[in-house]
Amino acid sequence: MINASIITIGDELLIGQTIDTNSAFISREFNRIGIWVRRRVAVGDNREEIWRALDEEGLQSDIIIMTGGLGPTADDITKPLLCEYFGGKLITDPDVLAHVKYLFEKVYRRPGPILERNLRQAEVPDVCTVLHNARGSAPGMWFRKEIKMGGTTRTPVYISLPGVPHEMKGLIMDEVIPRLLKEFRMPAIIHRTAFTAGQGESMIAELLIDFEKQLPAHISLAYLPHFGMVKLRLSGTSEDREVLEAEMEQHFKKLQSLVSNYLVTDEDEGLEIVIGKILRAKGLTMGTAESCTGGLIASQITSIPGSSDYFKGSIVSYANEVKENLLDVKHTTLSTRGAVSEETVKEMVAGAIKHLKVDFALATSGIMGPGGGSEAKPVGTVWIAVGNTEKTETLQLHLRFDRERNTATTAAQALNFFRKFVLTNS
Amino acid sequence: MINASIITIGDELLIGQTIDTNSAFISREFNRIGIWVRRRVAVGDNREEIWRALDEEGLQSDIIIMTGGLGPTADDITKPLLCEYFGGKLITDPDVLAHVKYLFEKVYRRPGPILERNLRQAEVPDVCTVLHNARGSAPGMWFRKEIKMGGTTRTPVYISLPGVPHEMKGLIMDEVIPRLLKEFRMPAIIHRTAFTAGQGESMIAELLIDFEKQLPAHISLAYLPHFGMVKLRLSGTSEDREVLEAEMEQHFKKLQSLVSNYLVTDEDEGLEIVIGKILRAKGLTMGTAESCTGGLIASQITSIPGSSDYFKGSIVSYANEVKENLLDVKHTTLSTRGAVSEETVKEMVAGAIKHLKVDFALATSGIMGPGGGSEAKPVGTVWIAVGNTEKTETLQLHLRFDRERNTATTAAQALNFFRKFVLTNS
Repeated sequence: MINASIITIGDELLIGQTIDTNSAFISREFNRIGIWVRRRVAVGDNREEIWRALDEEGLQSDIIIMTGGLGPTADDITKPLLCEYFGGKLITDPDVLAHVKYLFEKVYRRPGPILERNLRQAEVPDVCTVLHNARGSAPGMWFRKEIKMGGTTRTPVYISLPGVPHEMKGLIMDEVIPRLLKEFRMPAIIHRTAFTAGQGESMIAELLIDFEKQLPAHISLAYLPHFGMVKLRLSGTSEDREVLEAEMEQHFKKLQSLVSNYLVTDEDEGLEIVIGKILRAKGLTMGTAESCTGGLIASQITSIPGSSDYFKGSIVSYANEVKENLLDVKHTTLSTRGAVSEETVKEMVAGAIKHLKVDFALATSGIMGPGGGSEAKPVGTVWIAVGNTEKTETLQLHLRFDRERNTATTAAQALNFFRKFVLTNS
Repeated sequence: MINASIITIGDELLIGQTIDTNSAFISREFNRIGIWVRRRVAVGDNREEIWRALDEEGLQSDIIIMTGGLGPTADDITKPLLCEYFGGKLITDPDVLAHVKYLFEKVYRRPGPILERNLRQAEVPDVCTVLHNARGSAPGMWFRKEIKMGGTTRTPVYISLPGVPHEMKGLIMDEVIPRLLKEFRMPAIIHRTAFTAGQGESMIAELLIDFEKQLPAHISLAYLPHFGMVKLRLSGTSEDREVLEAEMEQHFKKLQSLVSNYLVTDEDEGLEIVIGKILRAKGLTMGTAESCTGGLIASQITSIPGSSDYFKGSIVSYANEVKENLLDVKHTTLSTRGAVSEETVKEMVAGAIKHLKVDFALATSGIMGPGGGSEAKPVGTVWIAVGNTEKTETLQLHLRFDRERNTATTAAQALNFFRKFVLTNS
């Protein structure tokens, strides 16, 4: 199997100012075409550390992909190092230079002459193949290096890409993947994923003890906790994609039947996608009335292209007066039961259906912390309601996390509760 | 300086199903107390790879911290490996066992007897110091190992933590940091961060050429692009915190004055925090009317504890009829100018101020892609308006990214535009 290493370069990763989303993207796309990412390494803007990482990963991996260290500002040391490592010198690439000029003159339309540091983006080691960066001025670079180990010689591929996520993504899809497919023969990797809810990881694992034991060596099962749900991932590898697909289908069907009582979805896709598919298929619409989730659920639903076909809007009623004025929650309900109560979320659902003119609505109200809790309603107390014009159902949660995770878990649980309600009542 | 390595264990990281947020958290907290994270490595659930990573990192780092691989399900191989690596055998820790029983019986209240696999969470290598996990059943573990290199002997610390983020966070704050502070003498590390907007990374760097040149060797400057803004980070290290603080203050003041025309904030904090501070200090309130950002701005504002003091709510008007019905956007405006127009966002602001009864409102409408663009209004066309009862200002953006980044950039630009408006008009 073809192995890869990802090396991410930049102090910002090591002091925790930036979360590394690039590696996940590259891993996913490589995995899709049958490349196994065996290691990911993050190092700082430090010559010795980058050099060591290149040496170490080159010994073990067929493909070494680096991101970062190519920007126009002065803390970048990567390009000179690449020259030295692969034995070349910096030259100006005329095509990249033309592209940089085009970007600054025609696209960014910066006033004044192009800065020297931007023009230097067109400099590349003369031993690399330049990869065109349609989305930015820093090109990608592709190298080969001979490594002699014992009696054998290996020539791994080294790829250097800018760290800006959308530029890196464009380069991976348009330049890197097509070239890798030409140069390597890949095995098939197939993943099938199911989400379950309502049982913990351990209980689900108990249901699957015998199933796991009878899996062939080239197929494996993993458990991933996911905001109160459990993600089950079946992964298989083979030289023969067709045979593997049939095998995977058979094992995955068995897996689904074993966890059928708790199954949420049998695709590796978020609840916002699952819900969108259901509503679109039935021509139904939805809206949300959010207090404690503060617009997070609406934001997740609208992250899906085309969601305007079924999502009409949300009334984020953080203040009680907004619950009264825009969602018709009764003043007496708020004063006698409180904002975090079953009655309030039921009235929020009714108000959302009426004012957003939707078929289904979802409402949340809770205490996310760290402040705002009381003995009767401690931090983590959440009420969720879902409904249509005929009926409303409610769910209470008692969460034990920090604010961020309480909010994210409430959103995930609310979406799943909503999904079940729509399936049953449409 | 004390060096650390982070080793993240789990196939889910290598196939890109999970984004690694744990490493950023650990890096940030270590950095705060003066530990330099020199490498982060992610490896799969693979004995050989974990072993190799422990060997490699142990040669270079004083602290090696591992996360993941400790869950109750069967794909976990970490604990037996730790026994072998540090030369111990698995024993049941009575305190951990009592804690596991307490969690399952009193907190989770699972019906039926506790599963064998959950009880096994109390097993730890007899050569480790157990770190109490108040938030879950898998304990942390603390090891020392002697490494002889040439004539010297080093005894790095190895720490193993569960990968569930909120459990890992609790262990870092309550157990790991206090112990590290006891066992190591740390230098001071200070970062000062400023955000600028309105100029690209290269132009800002031009302003700072001389400033950068005169910085002493122990203070460095980094540029980090951040949703249309540039984050400038000044980092210094010294044995003497007080001296360093004075030095950093002086250099940071100079930095601020050099970029003063573009300065957004001189704290390393998001715009949602900056805006909250301004509104709270003046006793003012806000709300949003979001179309293309779909609730993301409201969700960012409400991610801050106590935001209910100044944030009243949002009307997420994804559908045109919601813009008309709940925000009083005129039908003729929508039919003649379109939903993505200066007139529409101005009317959305007025509607939000009126119906949410707030001092200031912010509105967005745009085409986030990939579909929905036209020749007159291509994907990436965005209108933003901010206002109070007296006046409204607008801003148009032309974005060139994918849906996710277009939305995030719109939110960041809208928040900054709003911040400036509130500062000028209150």
